[in-house]
Amino acid sequence: MLKNIRIVLIETSHSGNIGSAARAMKTMGLTDLVLVAPKQSVDEQAIALAAGAEDVVKSAVTAESFSQAVADCSLVIGTSARLRHLQNSLIEPRECGKKAVAYATNGKVAIVFGRERVGLTNEELLKCHYHVTIPANPDYASLNLAMAVQLIAYEVRMAYLTQTIASPSQNIRNNANIYPQMEELEYFFSHTEQLYRSVGFIQNQGVMQRLRRLYNRAGIEKTELNILLGMLSAVEKNLNLDRDNS
Amino acid sequence: MLKNIRIVLIETSHSGNIGSAARAMKTMGLTDLVLVAPKQSVDEQAIALAAGAEDVVKSAVTAESFSQAVADCSLVIGTSARLRHLQNSLIEPRECGKKAVAYATNGKVAIVFGRERVGLTNEELLKCHYHVTIPANPDYASLNLAMAVQLIAYEVRMAYLTQTIASPSQNIRNNANIYPQMEELEYFFSHTEQLYRSVGFIQNQGVMQRLRRLYNRAGIEKTELNILLGMLSAVEKNLNLDRDNS
Repeated sequence: MLKNIRIVLIETSHSGNIGSAARAMKTMGLTDLVLVAPKQSVDEQAIALAAGAEDVVKSAVTAESFSQAVADCSLVIGTSARLRHLQNSLIEPRECGKKAVAYATNGKVAIVFGRERVGLTNEELLKCHYHVTIPANPDYASLNLAMAVQLIAYEVRMAYLTQTIASPSQNIRNNANIYPQMEELEYFFSHTEQLYRSVGFIQNQGVMQRLRRLYNRAGIEKTELNILLGMLSAVEKNLNLDRDNS
Repeated sequence: MLKNIRIVLIETSHSGNIGSAARAMKTMGLTDLVLVAPKQSVDEQAIALAAGAEDVVKSAVTAESFSQAVADCSLVIGTSARLRHLQNSLIEPRECGKKAVAYATNGKVAIVFGRERVGLTNEELLKCHYHVTIPANPDYASLNLAMAVQLIAYEVRMAYLTQTIASPSQNIRNNANIYPQMEELEYFFSHTEQLYRSVGFIQNQGVMQRLRRLYNRAGIEKTELNILLGMLSAVEKNLNLDRDNS
């Protein structure tokens, strides 16, 4: 399904940004990259910054125009600043991820990133079904192009994982036998109370209530419980030894 | 509130990554950057890549160690691959953002990024309350350091925006001063280790690692820490008393 989601970069000025964008895509499982009239072609700098995503940058297709790049797509989302006249079609990255994944089950989706300095033209924006805007710091909203690709690709991946891995009963089995039974835990609590009453630390119910709350919140595991029991025994042994010697 | 959330970069190899990370932070409204023993200092390359976030990179504080960088923080989240032994403290970026924002209303929070190639050491990971892992493409999970900072900072900002839009400063007061600072917690761990070595229970590093994991997972509170410290003192007093009498 992720293979149906295309990243389109329009008239990119720096080939390094193409490489970094490819790397960002691949870390999130995206591979379909289309370059519209790039100012610099894929060069050494692009390959270097792509790192392990060299395949993505090398298989990138170059298109002549926005329209050509998205011709086979059934959903086109353009990145944009928060422009007034786009108000009704503005979405945030999270919603962008969900929409892209939802459409990608049945067709191709393009997410289009504009020029480094000036973004998409009005004409291009009008060709998009939705406009995604990153809710950045209003005092400094200048994300690097590849960073923006990383964020959007991340939200696509999160939506994809939520949709596909929502299957239950998998984690449940992993946990089998990790946690102690209630009576083992109760034994620990009563043992603790007994010891610390004997050394004069516990004098009312408050302490045990707080300890119970702490350990229950932690979701104590069997191996951890064994350590705590071992600590109790070690203290007891030492106390007794000393008493025997006195 | 965002000013209480610190980004810590450990032994960064490339100054360019420091600059890019600073830019990523500022676009999401974060400004507190601490560099632990960076391999390259803040140089021209760092400043160039910081772009409009020159102020963040220039005001970055350099620390000698992980512990020093997070000493005044009440929540420490480390970035990590999906390691088996961390299973119970692993969170995803979205949860990381929520936790960071929740704690930041009353104390300092550190989100720690490891070395470019090898990440955080096991010792460092054990000092973190939670471990955030980016659910990247298993076939190519190699995010650039600054990209990872961008994603995490984005989720912090999203949580921040959600909280400030949705809620009226109510939960905020509840958390007031609930959690101990890292150095108080470290005191407890070293005190515990000392006592249980002296009674012969602790003979290797394994026990303390498991106890750290347990208590970090629990998100131990100040009052609880005081109880645990009181228990240590009570045992010590009794051991000493008995010895004096013998």
